[in-house]
Amino acid sequence: MVPTQSESVVAGNLTQFEYLALNSSLNLADGHARQELTAGQSLIVEELPRLWAAAVKRPVEEVERDAQRAYFELLGQHSHPADEGRVLSCYSSSVAMEIFARSLASRAQSIALIHPTFDNIPDILRGVGLRLVPLDEEALHAGDLDDVLLRSVQCVFVTTPNNPTGRVLPESGLRRLAQQCAEHDVVLTLDTSFRGFDPDAHYDHYAVLNASGCRWVVIEDTGKLWPTLELKVGWLVSSADVGLPLAEIYSDILLGVSPLVLSMIERLSQDAAAGGLADLHRFIAGNRAIVRGILGDVPDLRFPDPASRASVERVDLGDRSGLAVWTALSKHNVFALPCHKFHWADPGQGDHSLRIALSRTPSSVAAGSKALRTVLLDSR
Amino acid sequence: MVPTQSESVVAGNLTQFEYLALNSSLNLADGHARQELTAGQSLIVEELPRLWAAAVKRPVEEVERDAQRAYFELLGQHSHPADEGRVLSCYSSSVAMEIFARSLASRAQSIALIHPTFDNIPDILRGVGLRLVPLDEEALHAGDLDDVLLRSVQCVFVTTPNNPTGRVLPESGLRRLAQQCAEHDVVLTLDTSFRGFDPDAHYDHYAVLNASGCRWVVIEDTGKLWPTLELKVGWLVSSADVGLPLAEIYSDILLGVSPLVLSMIERLSQDAAAGGLADLHRFIAGNRAIVRGILGDVPDLRFPDPASRASVERVDLGDRSGLAVWTALSKHNVFALPCHKFHWADPGQGDHSLRIALSRTPSSVAAGSKALRTVLLDSR
Repeated sequence: MVPTQSESVVAGNLTQFEYLALNSSLNLADGHARQELTAGQSLIVEELPRLWAAAVKRPVEEVERDAQRAYFELLGQHSHPADEGRVLSCYSSSVAMEIFARSLASRAQSIALIHPTFDNIPDILRGVGLRLVPLDEEALHAGDLDDVLLRSVQCVFVTTPNNPTGRVLPESGLRRLAQQCAEHDVVLTLDTSFRGFDPDAHYDHYAVLNASGCRWVVIEDTGKLWPTLELKVGWLVSSADVGLPLAEIYSDILLGVSPLVLSMIERLSQDAAAGGLADLHRFIAGNRAIVRGILGDVPDLRFPDPASRASVERVDLGDRSGLAVWTALSKHNVFALPCHKFHWADPGQGDHSLRIALSRTPSSVAAGSKALRTVLLDSR
Repeated sequence: MVPTQSESVVAGNLTQFEYLALNSSLNLADGHARQELTAGQSLIVEELPRLWAAAVKRPVEEVERDAQRAYFELLGQHSHPADEGRVLSCYSSSVAMEIFARSLASRAQSIALIHPTFDNIPDILRGVGLRLVPLDEEALHAGDLDDVLLRSVQCVFVTTPNNPTGRVLPESGLRRLAQQCAEHDVVLTLDTSFRGFDPDAHYDHYAVLNASGCRWVVIEDTGKLWPTLELKVGWLVSSADVGLPLAEIYSDILLGVSPLVLSMIERLSQDAAAGGLADLHRFIAGNRAIVRGILGDVPDLRFPDPASRASVERVDLGDRSGLAVWTALSKHNVFALPCHKFHWADPGQGDHSLRIALSRTPSSVAAGSKALRTVLLDSR
């Protein structure tokens, strides 16, 4: 447990805000999945002792390959390179991120990073000594990147679907971005941790990346999708010619992830393919409708991401301060996430919004939204 | 799965040698626990669905504190600072190591590191930009450290029990080393991943460290002790005045580890305290006796660590090359670990030894030892 200061003291980064929520009954802060298990998922948890016994008997390579196939195929990523050994299984997407960052820093000085995005990404990249250049999400979606920008960096990093906006880079946009990266010999890195929630992100990214000829890295994450008590895998995937010491630095950090977790992910992927994923999409849409229903008529409040299907929802608070609302809300023992730190290069842009986690029980989402409604109406 | 090259090609580091063994039937390479579950441990695996249901209902802080108490108390570490929030739970000891290394590199340039030791420690430290100064294991045990050495570094790093030698820093030695570190304002860092195997390492290190007044970090590891399919925790523990941004960098990498894994570790610690740990010590001693019994009369062969109780055994091959023996052994599908890379500053010192993992079924240890005996006798 990380020591947390009294709630009135502002945390230093988004994860530190999330620590403050961890032991509260109404934690709408972190993006981890904390809803109840579905009936199908409960059966898989009951199976754990059997999955353990089966995993002990099989070569770990087989267990890993089966889990990778099931997960990547579930999300439409048919051209993933698992058979070529270019999918490295990590304890989490952040561990994959750390390995990527350390590898990149050994070959590069500068990276263009989507803005806004979750702040542990810029913090890890800065922490290993890289210079960051903000890549505005609007500019990314508006058309070609500026040649001057591309000449000034050795990597472009895009989170898609983005966190907290939920915005997805469409196939045409990825194709053009990858072509530009190929032309400038810039590595294109994608963080697709929220991919599972949005079918618009289920086109085959690996086919597009391979066709472009660019050097690329993708970080995939099973950790946001299912309420698995933090048992998860982050996958660090790369092109054959990536030119970064990913496998070497991986081998400094781990021998491999748990075959039990891999087996569980294979089973959860099968359950999702058999209808569980569609159920999850309906579940998140239902929780989003609860938030919008309860807060929709609060004066000067807006939902800035109307098309988002991610498991988080941003709320624009008008002229209210996100931090002041967060503080008032925390006095009701409800914890959301103030958004200023997502805007890592210009926190002021996020000063008036909150992020609400939707991977929770509907009753928690409703209770948290009602408390937020009370706080917002009281502040008028 | 990390791509591995053909077996005749030498791997770049010890973990890469371990990958080569992962899918073989006779893997005596890595130090992870791969023996069969005991009857008591099997019951805990059967309990996993119940532990899951219980963990969901409790604040993660409580689950974590209970696991920490059970594990640290089991190994005699009564003065551990879990109640002060100075025990950070990581996915593994290597993740704890990475967080420590990045924190240290933000404040320091040079570190004295025990020699030999497992090579991912120097590789991670070098990877974050630190300058390494070898600290010979013999010199460490011979008496006071050289003042010139202590003035040239900002940290001293000791693995105890050491890997691969099994050598334990005794209480008197730790007291004097910690005093010297206090006098020179040098951080003292201990990696105690193999602590569980040796009662000589069960004196209360935290009491000694606290009394010394030095700044200190300890990395503890549940991962070597029990055959838990890589489900484990690395604990990153520090003094109140450590002066390193450990909690900040921790928060860049993770929100927390799995409450299911924590609950399992609590139960395994209870089982160990009720007799399981003594059973494990007898089990490892039995496997060590198998290795020594089968290989003892091979000409020019020596066991250089007669007092070791660690779950690995070094074999000195006389004038034979460790790499040549490893290659011949691998043709029998038996994989051990050549020792040259443990001697990270002078690989030649390890050119004539192999490390054999003992956390395996006795039949595997016997079969591997017999194959090694054949290889060694054939090579005469």
